[in-house]
Amino acid sequence: MNILDGVKQGDPRSVSRAISAVENGTLEGRALLDETASLVGRALRIGITGPPGVGKSTTIDALVQVRRGRRERVGVIAVDPTSPFTGGALLGDRIRMAKSVEDDGVFVRSMATRGCTGGLSRATQDAADVLDASGFSTILIETVGVGQAEVEIARATDCTIVILSPESGDGIQAMKSGLMEIADILVINKADRAGADKLEHDIRSAFGLRPESVRRDVPILLTEAYRGQGIPELSAAIDTYVAEREKDGRFEARREENLRARLRGLAEYLIQRSLWEEDGAGSRLESLAREVLNHARTSYQAAELLVKEAMTNR
Amino acid sequence: MNILDGVKQGDPRSVSRAISAVENGTLEGRALLDETASLVGRALRIGITGPPGVGKSTTIDALVQVRRGRRERVGVIAVDPTSPFTGGALLGDRIRMAKSVEDDGVFVRSMATRGCTGGLSRATQDAADVLDASGFSTILIETVGVGQAEVEIARATDCTIVILSPESGDGIQAMKSGLMEIADILVINKADRAGADKLEHDIRSAFGLRPESVRRDVPILLTEAYRGQGIPELSAAIDTYVAEREKDGRFEARREENLRARLRGLAEYLIQRSLWEEDGAGSRLESLAREVLNHARTSYQAAELLVKEAMTNR
Repeated sequence: MNILDGVKQGDPRSVSRAISAVENGTLEGRALLDETASLVGRALRIGITGPPGVGKSTTIDALVQVRRGRRERVGVIAVDPTSPFTGGALLGDRIRMAKSVEDDGVFVRSMATRGCTGGLSRATQDAADVLDASGFSTILIETVGVGQAEVEIARATDCTIVILSPESGDGIQAMKSGLMEIADILVINKADRAGADKLEHDIRSAFGLRPESVRRDVPILLTEAYRGQGIPELSAAIDTYVAEREKDGRFEARREENLRARLRGLAEYLIQRSLWEEDGAGSRLESLAREVLNHARTSYQAAELLVKEAMTNR
Repeated sequence: MNILDGVKQGDPRSVSRAISAVENGTLEGRALLDETASLVGRALRIGITGPPGVGKSTTIDALVQVRRGRRERVGVIAVDPTSPFTGGALLGDRIRMAKSVEDDGVFVRSMATRGCTGGLSRATQDAADVLDASGFSTILIETVGVGQAEVEIARATDCTIVILSPESGDGIQAMKSGLMEIADILVINKADRAGADKLEHDIRSAFGLRPESVRRDVPILLTEAYRGQGIPELSAAIDTYVAEREKDGRFEARREENLRARLRGLAEYLIQRSLWEEDGAGSRLESLAREVLNHARTSYQAAELLVKEAMTNR
């Protein structure tokens, strides 16, 4: 079976190979995306983010079980925006998603950043397209809420779930970091721990303090994901969110907005490849840098020339 | 006096207006950079970074006094990579740099991020060029060590100073975040506080554990910046660092490497402007996004077309 047919038929090995191809930006990956594009757009894409340690993987594992209960196929993409210096380990996450990884109707994939969040966002969305074309009807995209990545991923999903826990003062940090701004549904996990009530109160206050113009009605759910408590309610909240927005056109409008952001990113990605991945790009950059140091050109003149040459060679 | 002459003569108001022009990416700013390019390259550019609260501004203020004592003109650029959501206030820093802001031989400027660190890095380097052309012989570029920005700024300086303090477990955090990797000189400020010895010991251990291939000899200095203690030694360590590297060619090699990174960033910046700041770019993006949603084109085909059209219009 070739990969294209395999993806269309939902064959896990083909899906896995296709995602590797799109992640690496190969010609084969690009061809697969073009050839399956007409099948894309059916899946619901849900972003799940929150600070480290709040129980994102456990919540996802439980949520996957609920969606599996109604015979949906579920894809999970775990995005790991770790420092370029330290590398990252997702083994722990795999273990916390143990139920999901043993189920053929569930596809779990980790993606690691390669230095820039923009590239990660492109690869993540391309991978989601592969899963979408392959018939997965719910796609969960997990990011760790520590930087810019989760904001980018929010722009790539139909609904963003922010998970907090009463431990470790997450509420304050989340409000500071902008996490609350991207939440469509807010989950307080580990709701049996001390401080859950206070966290909920703080969040409601923060939402209430927003200017009316940007105030939204964000559901707040209490969960204990490790024993499944509150997870059916979370799944239902997602469905309600989608149904309401499909009715009044906001669902499509968000998809259109997301797509505009994605096309922007893709255009920049394609240009960067023209600029830096052609044969000789490195030595041209070197010679121009020396010319600038010798005051034979200014920095801007050298950069203009790089652009012009790259575009002529396309 | 026109701005160009003012910059060349070191007039503070002209320098300030020129920096605003380059920060905003105006045509005037671009012209100023091209016209002063032959004057650029004389100043020493020093990056100063570290976690919040370690005393960066106080250290900079004290370091400025030492450099002023030998009649150098000193420029300070404080880069503020705050969240796009919260905004940022640098008033506190201005107060901590009180001595410097009252001195005509010192120019202090804050620059705020506008959503992307790449743009900040461009603006910061262009501003440093203005100061360089204007005869400031030492330029200190301060960033808060919380993300990607300080790594980018390290690539834009001749020497990077990382400041830590014994309070708040900075050592461990710095090692995790990659701050230690960019340090050419390491400062333990607030050295009179408890834990300074342990922090120094931990840092030396961490450096010693590095693979031989990447091990560097990073001086570790103890300072109490609020009373000037250790600051002349810090200034001397900078001079020693520069002198040694000028002797064996590494100083020039780093400048060349920095410039290559800068030209890459500039080329991408120029292309982004062509792509997104032309008249009609927004409505073209909208119509292409709708075509993708209707499966009339794939995402990649639409992105290719955007690039092609932007380049044809250049």
